[in-house]
Amino acid sequence: MRIIDTQRSGNCWKVRLLASFLGINLRRTTLSIDRGDLKSATFVADAPMRRVPVLELDDGSMLSESGAILFYLAHGTRWWPQELNDQAQTLAWMHFEQEQHMRPLAKLRLHLALKKDLPLLDAQVRNWLQESNDALAILEAHLTTGRHWVSTNTAPSISDVALYPYTRMAPMGGVALNDYPLVQAWMARIESLPGYEPLFPGQPDLNLSTLETSS
Amino acid sequence: MRIIDTQRSGNCWKVRLLASFLGINLRRTTLSIDRGDLKSATFVADAPMRRVPVLELDDGSMLSESGAILFYLAHGTRWWPQELNDQAQTLAWMHFEQEQHMRPLAKLRLHLALKKDLPLLDAQVRNWLQESNDALAILEAHLTTGRHWVSTNTAPSISDVALYPYTRMAPMGGVALNDYPLVQAWMARIESLPGYEPLFPGQPDLNLSTLETSS
Repeated sequence: MRIIDTQRSGNCWKVRLLASFLGINLRRTTLSIDRGDLKSATFVADAPMRRVPVLELDDGSMLSESGAILFYLAHGTRWWPQELNDQAQTLAWMHFEQEQHMRPLAKLRLHLALKKDLPLLDAQVRNWLQESNDALAILEAHLTTGRHWVSTNTAPSISDVALYPYTRMAPMGGVALNDYPLVQAWMARIESLPGYEPLFPGQPDLNLSTLETSS
Repeated sequence: MRIIDTQRSGNCWKVRLLASFLGINLRRTTLSIDRGDLKSATFVADAPMRRVPVLELDDGSMLSESGAILFYLAHGTRWWPQELNDQAQTLAWMHFEQEQHMRPLAKLRLHLALKKDLPLLDAQVRNWLQESNDALAILEAHLTTGRHWVSTNTAPSISDVALYPYTRMAPMGGVALNDYPLVQAWMARIESLPGYEPLFPGQPDLNLSTLETSS
């Protein structure tokens, strides 16, 4: 299998992270946004939804959307729960992540850390900060019930993988995690799992200074 | 089972629509945004993610997020495909719907049809129109391959249910569907399925004039 990704995308990181936990060796084709790769005819043919990540399956077919790719890779492993109720709660937290959590956190990171030259309104930044903190407060409150993992009590699932990257990168967008100690403890549990892989392999601190400006 | 919904939400409509196709009788608790129901302590306890719809299962547990609820209801029926590849493609289109399709279409509908007094920038409207038309063009292009349904060729799935409501309501937000004939034909196929239920039962034209201003 092959992943088509970009260097800095949190959605792509999710897929590589799960593959690493599962011991799956994904070939990697890393595109550059700056170079216009995501507008190329080749990419549009591979990815009708025009977004990374895309997973190329062994039969040559293409699967888009990080949530769908996580489901595909995890199916049949302990990362996709066995019980229907747990499966449904796992999907609920993954939808929460895309809609309420990732969206404002990714917008802040894009504008404040990756693409500082984009036009930006103060009101937008305030809204994204509010939305980001609302989402993190929901996650913190959820973890007060004594649970170690987001949607199942006994083992991590793909909802943990889905929620981790944009939480980990929140400070890059100006969202401090000091007020969310249970979220921090949950992140540390994920980082201590065998196979954990940082955003930039071999470079655990998310330091972007040596990298391309936006991909 | 009971659905906690609001009168006008397209995400809630998805759940009632699938239940109706499946012949499942959902009890319905309809909240009012205007009355502040979604900020009540009762609702927040039932719905940690603070959004409708919520499905109360027979054991009293609560399931949030329309995508997760559709999966839960469809599991074991023909609306959730049997093959892993089809399941993953179904989830991919459902994630596409929430992130690229529903979000701009719902924003336009909210501001131009439901809550006309909200502050609004021309640039926001232009962005949402562009994003809405980009998403509809992706759906139209996908349907040119001769397929009748979005993620499986032989039968409708929950990806069709997920994509239908905000497509159907697009004109309320100023997004004309004239340029998307295959999307229109696909909508007509959904509307001809046994059990089809409009947004307002008994009132097929989405006319809002007799209804509350925003829920």
